[in-house]
Amino acid sequence: MQLELTLTTHGTVRPGGRTARTRAAVREATLAELVAHGYQGLTVEGVAARSGVHKTTLYRRWGNIEGLIADALELASGEPWPVPDTGTIDGDLHALAREVLTGFTDPEAGPVATAFVAAAVQNPAAGRALHAFFQARHEQSAPIVDRAIARGELPAGTDPVEVVRFAIAPLYYRLFVSGEPIDETVADRAAAAALAAARAGVLVTPPSESASS
Amino acid sequence: MQLELTLTTHGTVRPGGRTARTRAAVREATLAELVAHGYQGLTVEGVAARSGVHKTTLYRRWGNIEGLIADALELASGEPWPVPDTGTIDGDLHALAREVLTGFTDPEAGPVATAFVAAAVQNPAAGRALHAFFQARHEQSAPIVDRAIARGELPAGTDPVEVVRFAIAPLYYRLFVSGEPIDETVADRAAAAALAAARAGVLVTPPSESASS
Repeated sequence: MQLELTLTTHGTVRPGGRTARTRAAVREATLAELVAHGYQGLTVEGVAARSGVHKTTLYRRWGNIEGLIADALELASGEPWPVPDTGTIDGDLHALAREVLTGFTDPEAGPVATAFVAAAVQNPAAGRALHAFFQARHEQSAPIVDRAIARGELPAGTDPVEVVRFAIAPLYYRLFVSGEPIDETVADRAAAAALAAARAGVLVTPPSESASS
Repeated sequence: MQLELTLTTHGTVRPGGRTARTRAAVREATLAELVAHGYQGLTVEGVAARSGVHKTTLYRRWGNIEGLIADALELASGEPWPVPDTGTIDGDLHALAREVLTGFTDPEAGPVATAFVAAAVQNPAAGRALHAFFQARHEQSAPIVDRAIARGELPAGTDPVEVVRFAIAPLYYRLFVSGEPIDETVADRAAAAALAAARAGVLVTPPSESASS
């Protein structure tokens, strides 16, 4: 669930030659500019200067700043991401919540992740990109719950994505709404609460929902 | 927990004479401009035009656009707010989550509340004002849980604010992070999950926390 947006900022060069390298460089520059100046200060000129890619190329391939943001997040969505598999639902949910914690408190990844969520509320294209990113992460995390049901740890019919949402929502609430700090206690409690709710059967998909999906 | 930001936009005039009326008019105009143009399009000139208060007065009394936003939210924090008291913790938490739902889906209040949360991630002063608003709402909601403990519905030592956070966090997560719709099913499930977690004892204040607070 961590916003793994810094993976290619360590200089990783993707296979695919010059085009892929340009895309990676532009994405790295977009993220760095976003962190440095926020969405309001993000410009194609700034990305051009930081990436060394001419701005006419940026306009031609990405259209505008919204295209640059959406592409950077789309790249992140497709990157491999470590879905916890500790052997128990308790262990997996705690690991998941800790990953969110790390994603926002890490000195390098944290500002990027924060800037992206902030950009999403300011710009529809960034919003769509972020929402697609979370949908992908939700789906990738679902096996955590599927495995728990198979092991008999959770009631049959438990909604996998709902358990995932509830294990991480309290962290995002503190970060972006109530403005309260997050730490390991907060993460662990979110995981424990989601697990307690799932065990109590309140996160089972209602009949109407499963019928319509 | 609803962001009751529209109370004085119905033309309510506070006691206190001309100064209070001016403040109410400026606040109403600030909210309307925020909804119409977003934080990025909010200007002192726009608030002046809409409120009929001269911009030199706005600059002198509120300083800048940040001061205008902070004051509008501070007024909202101090407004009376209906804390649910249905007689059961189940009823109260469901009512609380439904209030958040209504606060964001109401055609009039929803856009204002959304614009405020969005402003908070873009501007530190708006962020401080929003966080103070939520702290006040958390504290005002705490009696819901205190009463439940007194009635024997929840374990002694249950952290009141934590129960409140967990009952509403999933709604905010969908609204501002994952970008998913909210409805009564979502609100009811958030309330039920928080209650299940509280009943299971996972929202009891840890010894270290109670010692430091």
